[in-house]
Amino acid sequence: MTAPTGFTDITDELAAQAIELPSWAFGNSGTRFKVFGTPGTPRDPFEKIADAAKVHELTGLAPQVALHIPWDRCDFEALATHAGQLGVRLGTVNSNTFQDDDFKFGALTHVDERIRSKAIDHHIECIDVMDATGSRDLKIWLAEGSNYPGQADMRGRQDRLHDSLAKIYDRLGESQRLVLEYKFFEPSFYHTDVPDWGTSFAQVSALGDKAKVCLDTGHHAPGTNIEFIVMQLLRLGRLGSFDFNSRFYADDDLMVGAADPFQLFRIIHEVIRGGGLNNPDVAFMLDQCHNVENKIEGQMRSVLNVQEMTARALLLDTAALTAAQESGDVIAANDIFMDAFYTDVRPALAEWRTSRRLPANPVQAFRESGYQEQIEAERVGGTQAGWGA
Amino acid sequence: MTAPTGFTDITDELAAQAIELPSWAFGNSGTRFKVFGTPGTPRDPFEKIADAAKVHELTGLAPQVALHIPWDRCDFEALATHAGQLGVRLGTVNSNTFQDDDFKFGALTHVDERIRSKAIDHHIECIDVMDATGSRDLKIWLAEGSNYPGQADMRGRQDRLHDSLAKIYDRLGESQRLVLEYKFFEPSFYHTDVPDWGTSFAQVSALGDKAKVCLDTGHHAPGTNIEFIVMQLLRLGRLGSFDFNSRFYADDDLMVGAADPFQLFRIIHEVIRGGGLNNPDVAFMLDQCHNVENKIEGQMRSVLNVQEMTARALLLDTAALTAAQESGDVIAANDIFMDAFYTDVRPALAEWRTSRRLPANPVQAFRESGYQEQIEAERVGGTQAGWGA
Amino acid sequence: MTAPTGFTDITDELAAQAIELPSWAFGNSGTRFKVFGTPGTPRDPFEKIADAAKVHELTGLAPQVALHIPWDRCDFEALATHAGQLGVRLGTVNSNTFQDDDFKFGALTHVDERIRSKAIDHHIECIDVMDATGSRDLKIWLAEGSNYPGQADMRGRQDRLHDSLAKIYDRLGESQRLVLEYKFFEPSFYHTDVPDWGTSFAQVSALGDKAKVCLDTGHHAPGTNIEFIVMQLLRLGRLGSFDFNSRFYADDDLMVGAADPFQLFRIIHEVIRGGGLNNPDVAFMLDQCHNVENKIEGQMRSVLNVQEMTARALLLDTAALTAAQESGDVIAANDIFMDAFYTDVRPALAEWRTSRRLPANPVQAFRESGYQEQIEAERVGGTQAGWGA
Amino acid sequence: MTAPTGFTDITDELAAQAIELPSWAFGNSGTRFKVFGTPGTPRDPFEKIADAAKVHELTGLAPQVALHIPWDRCDFEALATHAGQLGVRLGTVNSNTFQDDDFKFGALTHVDERIRSKAIDHHIECIDVMDATGSRDLKIWLAEGSNYPGQADMRGRQDRLHDSLAKIYDRLGESQRLVLEYKFFEPSFYHTDVPDWGTSFAQVSALGDKAKVCLDTGHHAPGTNIEFIVMQLLRLGRLGSFDFNSRFYADDDLMVGAADPFQLFRIIHEVIRGGGLNNPDVAFMLDQCHNVENKIEGQMRSVLNVQEMTARALLLDTAALTAAQESGDVIAANDIFMDAFYTDVRPALAEWRTSRRLPANPVQAFRESGYQEQIEAERVGGTQAGWGA
Repeated sequence: MTAPTGFTDITDELAAQAIELPSWAFGNSGTRFKVFGTPGTPRDPFEKIADAAKVHELTGLAPQVALHIPWDRCDFEALATHAGQLGVRLGTVNSNTFQDDDFKFGALTHVDERIRSKAIDHHIECIDVMDATGSRDLKIWLAEGSNYPGQADMRGRQDRLHDSLAKIYDRLGESQRLVLEYKFFEPSFYHTDVPDWGTSFAQVSALGDKAKVCLDTGHHAPGTNIEFIVMQLLRLGRLGSFDFNSRFYADDDLMVGAADPFQLFRIIHEVIRGGGLNNPDVAFMLDQCHNVENKIEGQMRSVLNVQEMTARALLLDTAALTAAQESGDVIAANDIFMDAFYTDVRPALAEWRTSRRLPANPVQAFRESGYQEQIEAERVGGTQAGWGA
Repeated sequence: MTAPTGFTDITDELAAQAIELPSWAFGNSGTRFKVFGTPGTPRDPFEKIADAAKVHELTGLAPQVALHIPWDRCDFEALATHAGQLGVRLGTVNSNTFQDDDFKFGALTHVDERIRSKAIDHHIECIDVMDATGSRDLKIWLAEGSNYPGQADMRGRQDRLHDSLAKIYDRLGESQRLVLEYKFFEPSFYHTDVPDWGTSFAQVSALGDKAKVCLDTGHHAPGTNIEFIVMQLLRLGRLGSFDFNSRFYADDDLMVGAADPFQLFRIIHEVIRGGGLNNPDVAFMLDQCHNVENKIEGQMRSVLNVQEMTARALLLDTAALTAAQESGDVIAANDIFMDAFYTDVRPALAEWRTSRRLPANPVQAFRESGYQEQIEAERVGGTQAGWGA
Repeated sequence: MTAPTGFTDITDELAAQAIELPSWAFGNSGTRFKVFGTPGTPRDPFEKIADAAKVHELTGLAPQVALHIPWDRCDFEALATHAGQLGVRLGTVNSNTFQDDDFKFGALTHVDERIRSKAIDHHIECIDVMDATGSRDLKIWLAEGSNYPGQADMRGRQDRLHDSLAKIYDRLGESQRLVLEYKFFEPSFYHTDVPDWGTSFAQVSALGDKAKVCLDTGHHAPGTNIEFIVMQLLRLGRLGSFDFNSRFYADDDLMVGAADPFQLFRIIHEVIRGGGLNNPDVAFMLDQCHNVENKIEGQMRSVLNVQEMTARALLLDTAALTAAQESGDVIAANDIFMDAFYTDVRPALAEWRTSRRLPANPVQAFRESGYQEQIEAERVGGTQAGWGA
Repeated sequence: MTAPTGFTDITDELAAQAIELPSWAFGNSGTRFKVFGTPGTPRDPFEKIADAAKVHELTGLAPQVALHIPWDRCDFEALATHAGQLGVRLGTVNSNTFQDDDFKFGALTHVDERIRSKAIDHHIECIDVMDATGSRDLKIWLAEGSNYPGQADMRGRQDRLHDSLAKIYDRLGESQRLVLEYKFFEPSFYHTDVPDWGTSFAQVSALGDKAKVCLDTGHHAPGTNIEFIVMQLLRLGRLGSFDFNSRFYADDDLMVGAADPFQLFRIIHEVIRGGGLNNPDVAFMLDQCHNVENKIEGQMRSVLNVQEMTARALLLDTAALTAAQESGDVIAANDIFMDAFYTDVRPALAEWRTSRRLPANPVQAFRESGYQEQIEAERVGGTQAGWGA
């Protein structure tokens, strides 16, 4: 098996690639109708970290794990030590404004100053966690909004959001960042306070240079050209991080690359075009739910999908592409672009993986490792982690 | 205040209108992220019926309550008696193929004959309930599907679905019906086994005359012309029932008429045009979730919205409309159509309601009745009903 | 007939309302499949102005007419005089980067400096027209993009767009403005260079205070909460103008208010909330195509729809709404909001119109005026105006 | 270069594959805003056939050409002879109900019996053409509908559609078929008379066995699972033909496989699963517009895309897939499915093509053939073909 032309030129970039895993991907998840539990599901943050470390051990791609507060509340120094012993480190800290009864009608946007303060304090606590774990990024998914026209004053909420974010921003350390995620809809159905990249961009621009936008690939209207937004946010210097996943309809949170692999290719192409690959300013993270598939394998498949698409995008003949583009040769430009996408990089990646003492087929290696059987045997009793845990 | 021209001609139709309430609308509901509990929420089917009966008492619009099995399992004869004492009756029985662990990968469509049998048996149990309650309709929302391409064999599942439905159909009594609901997506994200009206129509047509389609107004792709489907199903003699609600994005399950009142008007116009209004073959039901609003008031507002739009649609000057249509006068036809929609029927309805010894403003009457305070005081302890209850 | 409570308080606002008509609405239009011609269609800008003036004469709502270059090239001083004699004035000047063969692969974004210069020069010509007509606004709909992945370098195009816009911006007079319209898709199918409000906002913010965003109500992804964008752009001080129309699917360019009247109500509510009503900084314009309906009547119906929804939105009991919102009373807040929408303002508007010496029913008055018959008789020979004219 | 495992087993199927080209793909096309003309564009049906034959000569994939009446009206016997001399044959005949001024408000659905008769007669003429050309299929794209609520009586139109289709169906010869295409929207914006597969299915089922459904891959709502419909129509015995193209937003008519190659893979997988590949009952056709790319190359790329995806889908390890599906192993099933999609069949196809005396790279061979230069030189004067020609 020979590698595709140019493969050896891209291995440094591949070796540098790091994708952050969400701790919650290892816990149970589901739809509003049903959460199917599975044997071996972690019961605490330490077990989540162990599963994440297994993904990294077998893929070499996932050295960092994102936390979610309050789901992962524990002794954070002990957790950081535990992570280090397993070969990974703690990463982005995610706040939660959607599960406290007080936040039914808003948190950072709430009309009641007392509840806004409570929400701000929650974010201060998150920054305290960041200080303890050495995390750089505070990620805020603003899951606030309203269900009915007239229910809320959208304008007032937007202004209060700015005030709340400014207070949180002021608490950030020198090298810390605030990353504001946007989402088209859900859990609110009429309006969402940060529904699009434009709102996130406007809000973070009003804060300062340490505030960035998080782009979750599942958080857009049908038909949205997501790679355009990637391009634009990189151009504007405001792309802080990705939440990778894939979707057919809404925020399905499927494995990244599963629904539309070509879209993932196009997104990564724009990341490379805009200087975002292996750029510390742009965090690559997963945000997924493995409702019906094995969770650890689901995470492995996802980071491998990102790696495979990165390899394909790196192999693109950009000089030939530019020439075709500039001459208005639509067919040639598209052919060159598709040629990179259609190149099967998997055998070369398997060989290269072996050369780095990683299993050629990480998912198969996981299945042969006995790890799943072990955790199913060990993790008995207690309460499995989930979004409510 | 004078009533709109022609109002007296439509009051017989209005008096005949009956909308079925879903028992689960009175229980707690939410998104996959959070279910907000509220004081006074029913703890058992009897309390749900009591709340539904209150809606009927104050609106005169909701004499029937739909049940969901297993959520409403209880002594059904006692429940029927209870309902009768409160002035309502038990209606459609809804089955559930989405919450048993065995049904993770399908129920009526499952590749394993044992699990299919279990799912069929569940429906037989539902028909037993119908026999006990005197219900006519078995409603099946086929919440089955897959999340990933390749996960399932869609064709085999479709064939097995037919076999399973045929077995259930055979068990129906002479005057009972099977109503098959379709849904665009959720809880599955790649494929759904009954995703559109065409599939439901093809499946029920293969069963026999007692099988019909249920149209849930929230279960379509963005941009779908729902009233066209209403027209078509009535024309084909297969519209069995409506699940009314409204939505901005996905299956939001908001109060019917809240998101797009003009769409509700158009739907009811086609119902009237096709002979479906106050036609016993076409059941009007709600299927909604009151995540943030008062549940009883939410049901009241919803049946009132249906009534108001029915009144507007009945007031349409169909002779003038037909003349404008036939002459190709687009502006006039649209004006005549909009005139009915824009006519404010609310004062006339309030007067007419008073004439029938109903409160002019049912929601206000509810607020003044003390019922909410009473149930909040009484319903303490126990477990509030919800989708998992 | 009594007017709704509070109607007399809002007549000053109603009297101040002015909606700009697009000259091209009076020419023939259609889909890519067929343009149906109609008798009486204008053959030059002067006849378009005459039709627009007739709309204003009968509604009192449309004192200004937008031009499109090159479609409306003529002796602009003569045209301005003609307009003035008919009681209207010339307004926004629209440029065109989508019909010159040189612009097949871009205009202001083109990779070839020669073509960019040509496109910039076209806009300079437009500003010359503005100087001649006394127009304030140059509106740029950036109909540029690509059809296939790989066809174009989106990032480079975005940078070149900035450079081109900056050159055009520099040519603006002291009191002139540049308004940049965004559009989700069409005529390009893979990427559009200004596809969303965020991109338009970022581009105009980089230019200066005289650059604003134009919001066309038909230019969004399915499910987009448009009134949220209205709120946000007003909040950010960047809402320059509206292109009003309505749509069911894509950019259908139907009469405003025809597809979803409640959405129009919500949009105008946010305009009022944000101080945009009768604010000279926010131009109200139509941008519509009357493919199958009478064009003059279509424009009349549209401005009347805007007026009716403005009246309803002005009648909203904002104090009661705020109280309900602040107390978390979702049902009451929604009821108050819907009450304004459902209030039938048409009889009161007809009376008020009569009091201003306008016809109570402008469309009927037009039909009785003989104007249509007159133009059908007079406008014989020549070439009817259309998008290619 | 070695071929993928199993490649030799699929070459018989590949050799049998035949894709029909639309004559109109070689004429000029565009959006409602602009049609860009290109040198060498055919000026009559004979030149269109010549271009189509060139595609077949170089790819071996396109032996048949579909006609559109009235665009291709000519001496059909001469045209058939011309086609035969160039190595291709005439195929499906497409009717046109959207460009005659009489059809502004409908054709087969029109309320006026005179206009319905005219539309029916047009289809009789098409069947006469079929008799002359030896074509089997009459394809009807029912481009009828309305733009405004109230404009038309949808129910009456549906009934009249049935009557009209029945008259046309009666005229079919023994071995001829009627294929009814559905489309979500455009050119109508409120309602379309055959908007979905369910309507087409219901209408053709009411006609008889010679009536089938045409599935155009660009004619669905956002998010529609098209392969599900393919499966269902094959299962119901009603899939008559495909119109292949691709789209990002609406009916973009891009080259098939260009927007979402994985979707094309899934569609062809279901075709194979349901016995539709190389089944004479299921016609594979293209329906595309090459607005900005070279038209002949665009057709070549499209048939090659279909061939490549067919090869990938044929290579799927169905035994392993079934085993994984039946064991509920979601990750394995998806991996097996994706493995086929990711297999790069292009080198093996190039070798196989060479073995059949076809150019390894057909597009490059076309570029080197001088054909484009030749037609640009020869086809001077006259009127280039387009949708209006």
